[in-house]
Amino acid sequence: MTRIFDNPADFADEALDGFVAANRGYVARVNGGVVRSTEVPAGQVAVVVGGGSGHYPAFAGLVGPGLATASACGNMFASPAAGQIYRVAKAANAGGGVLLSYGNYAGDVLHFGQAQLRLNAEGIETRTVTVTDDIASAPLDQIGKRRGIAGDLTVFKIAGAAAEAGLSLDEVERLAIKANHRTRSLGVAFDGCTLPGAVAPLFRVPAGQMSLGLGIHGEPGISEHPMPTASALAELLVSRLLADTPDHPGNRVVAIVNGLGTVKYDELFLLFGKIEKLLTVAGLTVVEPECGELVTSLDMSGLSLTLLWLDEELEQYWADPADSPAYRKGNLAPHARREAARPEDAVAGEVEETTTAAAADLGRQTAAVLAQVRDVVVEHEEELGNLDAIAGDGDHGIGMRRGVEAAVDAAAQAATAGASVGRVLEAAGEAWSERAGGTSGALWGSAVIASGLAMGNRETYGDEDAAAAVTAFVGAITELGKAEPGDKTMVDALLPFRDAFLREFDGGTSLAGSLTAAAVAARAAAAKTAELRPLKGRARPLAEKSLGHPDPGAVSFGLIAERIAAYIHAGPAEPGFTDPRLDHSELASAAGKGATT
Amino acid sequence: MTRIFDNPADFADEALDGFVAANRGYVARVNGGVVRSTEVPAGQVAVVVGGGSGHYPAFAGLVGPGLATASACGNMFASPAAGQIYRVAKAANAGGGVLLSYGNYAGDVLHFGQAQLRLNAEGIETRTVTVTDDIASAPLDQIGKRRGIAGDLTVFKIAGAAAEAGLSLDEVERLAIKANHRTRSLGVAFDGCTLPGAVAPLFRVPAGQMSLGLGIHGEPGISEHPMPTASALAELLVSRLLADTPDHPGNRVVAIVNGLGTVKYDELFLLFGKIEKLLTVAGLTVVEPECGELVTSLDMSGLSLTLLWLDEELEQYWADPADSPAYRKGNLAPHARREAARPEDAVAGEVEETTTAAAADLGRQTAAVLAQVRDVVVEHEEELGNLDAIAGDGDHGIGMRRGVEAAVDAAAQAATAGASVGRVLEAAGEAWSERAGGTSGALWGSAVIASGLAMGNRETYGDEDAAAAVTAFVGAITELGKAEPGDKTMVDALLPFRDAFLREFDGGTSLAGSLTAAAVAARAAAAKTAELRPLKGRARPLAEKSLGHPDPGAVSFGLIAERIAAYIHAGPAEPGFTDPRLDHSELASAAGKGATT
Repeated sequence: MTRIFDNPADFADEALDGFVAANRGYVARVNGGVVRSTEVPAGQVAVVVGGGSGHYPAFAGLVGPGLATASACGNMFASPAAGQIYRVAKAANAGGGVLLSYGNYAGDVLHFGQAQLRLNAEGIETRTVTVTDDIASAPLDQIGKRRGIAGDLTVFKIAGAAAEAGLSLDEVERLAIKANHRTRSLGVAFDGCTLPGAVAPLFRVPAGQMSLGLGIHGEPGISEHPMPTASALAELLVSRLLADTPDHPGNRVVAIVNGLGTVKYDELFLLFGKIEKLLTVAGLTVVEPECGELVTSLDMSGLSLTLLWLDEELEQYWADPADSPAYRKGNLAPHARREAARPEDAVAGEVEETTTAAAADLGRQTAAVLAQVRDVVVEHEEELGNLDAIAGDGDHGIGMRRGVEAAVDAAAQAATAGASVGRVLEAAGEAWSERAGGTSGALWGSAVIASGLAMGNRETYGDEDAAAAVTAFVGAITELGKAEPGDKTMVDALLPFRDAFLREFDGGTSLAGSLTAAAVAARAAAAKTAELRPLKGRARPLAEKSLGHPDPGAVSFGLIAERIAAYIHAGPAEPGFTDPRLDHSELASAAGKGATT
Repeated sequence: MTRIFDNPADFADEALDGFVAANRGYVARVNGGVVRSTEVPAGQVAVVVGGGSGHYPAFAGLVGPGLATASACGNMFASPAAGQIYRVAKAANAGGGVLLSYGNYAGDVLHFGQAQLRLNAEGIETRTVTVTDDIASAPLDQIGKRRGIAGDLTVFKIAGAAAEAGLSLDEVERLAIKANHRTRSLGVAFDGCTLPGAVAPLFRVPAGQMSLGLGIHGEPGISEHPMPTASALAELLVSRLLADTPDHPGNRVVAIVNGLGTVKYDELFLLFGKIEKLLTVAGLTVVEPECGELVTSLDMSGLSLTLLWLDEELEQYWADPADSPAYRKGNLAPHARREAARPEDAVAGEVEETTTAAAADLGRQTAAVLAQVRDVVVEHEEELGNLDAIAGDGDHGIGMRRGVEAAVDAAAQAATAGASVGRVLEAAGEAWSERAGGTSGALWGSAVIASGLAMGNRETYGDEDAAAAVTAFVGAITELGKAEPGDKTMVDALLPFRDAFLREFDGGTSLAGSLTAAAVAARAAAAKTAELRPLKGRARPLAEKSLGHPDPGAVSFGLIAERIAAYIHAGPAEPGFTDPRLDHSELASAAGKGATT
């Protein structure tokens, strides 16, 4: 039970403020996360970690000399948005390049990936090492699909020590990759955790049972067991991890027994004692182990065992000192307090004025289209939530609403300031991504930004420009989301939409007519996802429940497409709004195709 | 829920083994606890802390340079026994004297007090500073009666830093006393904790409620509240602590937000942020705060706020570096690993042989009497447990059994090795005290040791010697337990027992007859405690429930007294056993007094 808050919606933000207040000697708050408050030597590689909140000390508690340089901090269990990561990395950058490192979850991969593109585009050399230690999440031959859990610590620690030692970005990246390849974890869960303001746990494990390999957000495990003795549990964890031993393992290992939240210290120590004996019997020497709460999940009842197989250089970097709020080791020369750096200054100057009234007028029209998107999402919020609750966590409605409301606010603000089409869409996409959080927020945000980039900031547009925007929108989602047709995601409505649109448009149908036809195709395809079994994401374990119900992401996309098409057909409802691109003579034929319901 | 164990009875021991295995660079196991595994400079004051297990990082996690020198570790929530504390302190002693420091609980006061007597008697200068920070446990004018909670950390930290700085025992003691006098804490609880193997929590807080000032073992609080917002909770804690500001406070404070187990980090940080703002508004500057799990109670849901009002020297010692498994701060020069010291060697040579066969025979007879005590306890274990469960924690039966079984084993071993009366009783008392744990174990153990010391190790005894033993037994309990007649404790049966015994014995009745009369008086007095309301100890909050039921400690004493009297009357049941002290002609008159039931 998570109890201490005023307004649950502010929980992650207020907790981060308090964390910084309690650790001013270590960290300073920046927009999107925290960065070291102590001097970072010029040219040192910046190790930027991050992820959702609720996993303390991961991730902000691991910022300090010898460990991470900064942490991007998302909402509860939700990835930070690309813009947040970008800003945190800019604030952390000391001229030696940036290593992004985080657990391998879809939302994080999306957002950190976008931030990396933007940093590299600006000339800040940025690399990524995702942590993939959880052996329960995919077989060894698909190690790249594995999730990151407590192995975050070994990878961050090795990378942070290498950066502190002054190694180059190439070397820090190489060592982080090596540490990840030699790290394995396996967890067990006895009960779930409760998000602030929620009345029930996010997931449950039946009383007296233990779920092997259950993820820290309730992702599916391997098997269920009656609660074992500590000795049997130690045997189980050790034998599974040793069966997954990396190549050229050597015989020296770091062992980490990590508590998820409510399995307490004496229990962790008791288990560690048994694990150490088993590892010794297996011929391994345990080097500088850790036993405590290092990567948690609010008040989740569970624990994990992590092994890092050392070689000579990894052992050196593991043993090196580190000094962060939650992880301190050895003796580091004190680091001077850094001048109040105002890292936000580095990313100022992003807003530019448009030059003409015509371009600004088009910007306002763009904002009006986004307001339609918001309206349809708000109208269907509850229905989308209920649909998502059948085989998911039920937050699709509220997540979409949060995202689109933020997008409309940002668009209105930009439009009022005189921004044109491209800039309005960019502002909207960034806000969507940051406020909605999670995978769908990242996808929608990126797609809106991509269509803005395709449109550019001009005074006049032809239908071809709108068609290019549609293509860019679809491309962003398929590239970033990496879902295949048939995976039961938004893509199953998106591709039929694109295909129908291009067929009509290339065949000479007007923009509005083509959109209408495409929207009809999207709605139909969304309905047909009811026949599919989910193959990606969190809904996978509940595949059976999902059968017979359409995918919420596909449904919301279909609804939005339909509303935009209808709006563009009907022309502006607001006085004074005119859209030179619309051919109203198409209305009749579109209606004949049964565009709206 | 505490889930990770093989056998719940071994939990504390196995957890401590695992803790040491995970922290060999910091601590080594000694009989009764842990001591630093690194060099302690010769002449440095040894700061020896301790208490029951289940409070990690208190107490073993706070052992290291700049903090504690050693920790005596009791069973779950039970004081370590005097012998354990004594041995741990001997192992920690570096020639500079010993400061014992621990939370102010009856069992700890008893056991640490006994250890101090023994250390001082051996020429190891030993002082005590008990921690009394919990403002909910007694009003300010009775500060000495307050319990110790998270304020343990401030007192230990100041004392440890002072010792590390090479100050004398006088100075370390003075600073620890000052730190304690300037430390205040107040806690809240949202739910209780579950001991290993228990099916239900040790105590509960109704759902949606918050209990203000509830102790970490379920001791009574001040008031119940509906769960407040974080802001209201911060207000409540800050205002109550500021209302209890010490003299000459200054305006610089350490603030510690401590989680008891399942209130997690983000919640603690969120609350800390609000607390820091309130303290700032109140004109205080927060210096090097702490926010985390520092003194826990297994999986208890609760938290506390501690304030330490600093002056110049306290601020210096608070800021000094420390390096322990769970609390690390600043940079200490590395401490060399100490030679495997075998601290047990220091306390070898305690067992001596008796010189004569006659003395050894009396030792065996003494062990046989103790076996009778064990039998009567085992026969009544369930009844005593049920009685205790009415207004207490229900462990009186099992605690008495554990203690007396250990006592009989130790006595048998000593007797087999040829020990005489005094030495048999001493061995039995030590074992009782160590194995039973808690207050009643300490009292019984001490009383048995005291009667052994009164008897000495001779070849012959007169009735007067037995009378002296009875007086010593009673004296030990009244002195150590400090309960008054009418407090509804064992003392309410003990004093009538002593008075009846002395009246008969001084009036010329034989030893057996006097014992029988005394036992009758004890049984009657124990029954009469049903009319009393408890005024001491944990039963206090359940005073109403307790009315109409006798005190379990008084009842068990009465049963034991009765069994010993009957046994001594009846003469030995085992072949070959003769007791020269018994006057069997008294049997009839004793029976006439209705000795047994």
